[in-house]
Amino acid sequence: MPREQLIETAKRVYRSYGFSPIDTPALEYLEILQGKGSEESDRQLYQFVDHGGRAVGLRFDLTVPLARFVAQHAAELGMPFKRYHIATVWRGENTQRGRYREFMQCDFDTIGTKSVVADIETALVIHDLMLAIGFSEFTICINNRMVLNGLLEKLGLADQSTAILRALDKLTKIGAENVIEEMQQQAGATREQAVQVLRLGELGGTADAVLRQLDPILTGSDKGAAGVEILRQVIAGIQAVGVPESRVKLDVSIARGLDYYTGTIFETYLGPLPTIGSICSGGRYDNLAELFTKQELPGIGASLGLDRLLAAMEELGMIDKVATPAQVLLTYFAKDHLPAYLLLAAQLRAAGLRVELYPEPKRLGQQLKYADQRGFRVALVAGDDELARRTCQVKDLRTGDSQEASLDPHAEPVARAIRAITDAV
Amino acid sequence: MPREQLIETAKRVYRSYGFSPIDTPALEYLEILQGKGSEESDRQLYQFVDHGGRAVGLRFDLTVPLARFVAQHAAELGMPFKRYHIATVWRGENTQRGRYREFMQCDFDTIGTKSVVADIETALVIHDLMLAIGFSEFTICINNRMVLNGLLEKLGLADQSTAILRALDKLTKIGAENVIEEMQQQAGATREQAVQVLRLGELGGTADAVLRQLDPILTGSDKGAAGVEILRQVIAGIQAVGVPESRVKLDVSIARGLDYYTGTIFETYLGPLPTIGSICSGGRYDNLAELFTKQELPGIGASLGLDRLLAAMEELGMIDKVATPAQVLLTYFAKDHLPAYLLLAAQLRAAGLRVELYPEPKRLGQQLKYADQRGFRVALVAGDDELARRTCQVKDLRTGDSQEASLDPHAEPVARAIRAITDAV
Repeated sequence: MPREQLIETAKRVYRSYGFSPIDTPALEYLEILQGKGSEESDRQLYQFVDHGGRAVGLRFDLTVPLARFVAQHAAELGMPFKRYHIATVWRGENTQRGRYREFMQCDFDTIGTKSVVADIETALVIHDLMLAIGFSEFTICINNRMVLNGLLEKLGLADQSTAILRALDKLTKIGAENVIEEMQQQAGATREQAVQVLRLGELGGTADAVLRQLDPILTGSDKGAAGVEILRQVIAGIQAVGVPESRVKLDVSIARGLDYYTGTIFETYLGPLPTIGSICSGGRYDNLAELFTKQELPGIGASLGLDRLLAAMEELGMIDKVATPAQVLLTYFAKDHLPAYLLLAAQLRAAGLRVELYPEPKRLGQQLKYADQRGFRVALVAGDDELARRTCQVKDLRTGDSQEASLDPHAEPVARAIRAITDAV
Repeated sequence: MPREQLIETAKRVYRSYGFSPIDTPALEYLEILQGKGSEESDRQLYQFVDHGGRAVGLRFDLTVPLARFVAQHAAELGMPFKRYHIATVWRGENTQRGRYREFMQCDFDTIGTKSVVADIETALVIHDLMLAIGFSEFTICINNRMVLNGLLEKLGLADQSTAILRALDKLTKIGAENVIEEMQQQAGATREQAVQVLRLGELGGTADAVLRQLDPILTGSDKGAAGVEILRQVIAGIQAVGVPESRVKLDVSIARGLDYYTGTIFETYLGPLPTIGSICSGGRYDNLAELFTKQELPGIGASLGLDRLLAAMEELGMIDKVATPAQVLLTYFAKDHLPAYLLLAAQLRAAGLRVELYPEPKRLGQQLKYADQRGFRVALVAGDDELARRTCQVKDLRTGDSQEASLDPHAEPVARAIRAITDAV
């Protein structure tokens, strides 16, 4: 239930920005999937030969299928193309225990524009999504790859950017000294150069303050200055709609492992539980589909980490243990009155309530126990006496209080009594 | 988009009756799947050995995973257990062309009760679902397997029920004479017996009329009489909530191929397009999980045929060719006013509207062409002049009419002007 609610919240927010759903098959031809992720994703690929002798595999992410889809349909799609995709992906673990991993990804992307508007909106989508899920304290960390790459260019380390990024990404895990050492060993940087790179991560204060500190550091690098300018526009755009300053952080140390990102990058941390890691991440890429088409398709996107978010919400006690989607259990009390119960349930549903009719005329205690197990909020009880009076008892299952409400007209008084309980919370 | 809307409509209706979502993995161990469907489903199974050396397969339906799930968790679940499951299943076609089939099933089931209330509610769910999707003319055909089985018992043909059912199921396709012939050849029935079986299918009129005709035919068969009594209660229950008579048909000829059903069975036909076949079918089974557990788990369920329904709606012109989930395209008109556009979009979203901001300050004509391609209903245009006046143009893209609305307070007049267009239809 909470998983479904999260997914629906994400869809609602994505749609409110004009993102459309797309759906691609879980099975892709192997040649589409292989060599498109990391060595690890190749190794983890579930693959087999289908009934027609073609090698196929289960997708390991939603980005490769998107790239294939956009490359195939770029002409009809029209640009910009804004899509969201919430679906299952598979990665086989290399263990002896026969375990498999199957999980859901929750992506949104804007393809076909280099405009900073898409960068700003990506941040705003993340912001609205966090609020809609129920968080008010969270931090969207923003960086731009060009800032670091500009600095590396200036330091003469441009060729080593992958190794530098990989080391920098470990900063919170292994500490500054070890990162400096790794940069020296793996990227051939001098200690001084490594320190200069690390200094980027130490810039602090408000976004505006960080921008002011960045300017002198990147003087002399066109790429770096361009990155700072984009960051400035992104921050200004976010500020324009009134997002509180506390929710946006310009963090020039975040790098996001994937080599694939080229511009703005995002990570999102929960205020009450930052240690669980980023729960919504993404960034800008120059060319989504270069492996499938010659047409250049720039884009930007992010992905909500559904399982991590659910784990966090569980830990924070944000998830009710409710097993029923219906608020109301209509007990089946007087055996001969099934038609009256069916009609009452139908009338309440027509009024927009969700109602489960208990299917058997068992003892009332047993039905109320079921209501309790399932987490119903309200039980309705109508025996011979109530039905003769054209009423039913509306029982608040938290307080135990009962009140009698009229079935006429059209069970409206009953619906009102139920709403008074469920809306109060 | 229409697919997503259908799925959401189904979820809403299922929940209004207290059905909860469940989610099981797409991959099951091969031993769970094999031998659980037909010979055909075994043949069509996509299977492979996972990274831990275990044989696994992709589910071919949602019923086998449900049975496995309920057998494993019966104790914790508590009964009745009402679940819906909307998910992908896979069946490999046995062709040389390397095609695969991947499609979505949309099931709901009530497990753990033999009460006729569950039978009645299954019909009511189908009814509400059809209405919610947008059909007012449709027929839910209802039968009970015990009626035919009772008659076969009376005729001494009980052992041949599978062959008889298989023949009877072909009635509309091959005609009465061929069915009679098949019953003689495949089930060893006399011509006279076959004619008596077929007569069931000829009973006509209202449900009450059919019930009256059934009584004498089944005199002497306890099973047949019990089946008629359940049908009587199902019809009475449906009538109790005021479902029009025209939408419910007691059709004693429908058999539903699967041997698996034991009681009430359902098929649903669209009034404007009956030839497309049943779009929501199901029935009662005595023992869902007998292959996995000794515990008896009776149940009843049905499945919405999503792809068939979409094909029908397409044919009936019920599907708008709209590619955007947003109603409103906010054009990016005056290059320097991005903050104003971002704020306007945010204010309209906060008012519950879905708004896409065009990401680049291109020529207005090009942006309006994009709006047209995507099927936006309203475009907003605000240049220097409008913004100086704190207004924007609200353009109805169907009529071409424009009106100016104030941005203050909080873009409320703009939101009202948009709603006047989108709510009018």
